[in-house]
Amino acid sequence: MNHGNLLGEILAILAEEELRPLLATPDLRIERIVSTGQASPPGFWYDQDWAEWVLVLVGQAGLLIEGEVAPLLLTAGSYVYLPAHCRHRVEWTSTETPTVWLAVHHR
Amino acid sequence: MNHGNLLGEILAILAEEELRPLLATPDLRIERIVSTGQASPPGFWYDQDWAEWVLVLVGQAGLLIEGEVAPLLLTAGSYVYLPAHCRHRVEWTSTETPTVWLAVHHR
Repeated sequence: MNHGNLLGEILAILAEEELRPLLATPDLRIERIVSTGQASPPGFWYDQDWAEWVLVLVGQAGLLIEGEVAPLLLTAGSYVYLPAHCRHRVEWTSTETPTVWLAVHHR
Repeated sequence: MNHGNLLGEILAILAEEELRPLLATPDLRIERIVSTGQASPPGFWYDQDWAEWVLVLVGQAGLLIEGEVAPLLLTAGSYVYLPAHCRHRVEWTSTETPTVWLAVHHR
């Protein structure tokens, strides 16, 4: 049985975002991402072949969808569905506490 | 853009578990479940054709997998992967605070 806790083993400060795969099938990928202040590089947009359903468990982030005026504020419990090729970027993540994301990518 | 908050709109006391669909494709179903003390009926086992990756966001629950001696204690952040036809039952959920689950069912 594969089990664990998404809020365990979080380092306070990381140089880069930490990505931990939790489940992978040919059509589905579930992963935990921990951000500690990271943001997408200037001018960078995610443009993914797979759709992504993403949830913030703890922390805060600003997610900008291309064409929107302002980033969406994500806090504990916030989720967003990003269809394939919905261009988006992470404008900021909290620098005070780690932000833990659950990302469900699917084809 | 489909977005929201999993911790919003939680009623304190519900007669039955509340199930809210969040995403559905032919091979994937994401839903929020809110339990307020409910448990599986005596002798009942879930035996599902699809696999389920399940996460507790807040609250507490005891999940019994067939063949295990004791239920697994699930608290905030706990996740479990239940392959298709892995028989299991919810022994109990917290009666003090709502338990919010995220269930990702996939084929």
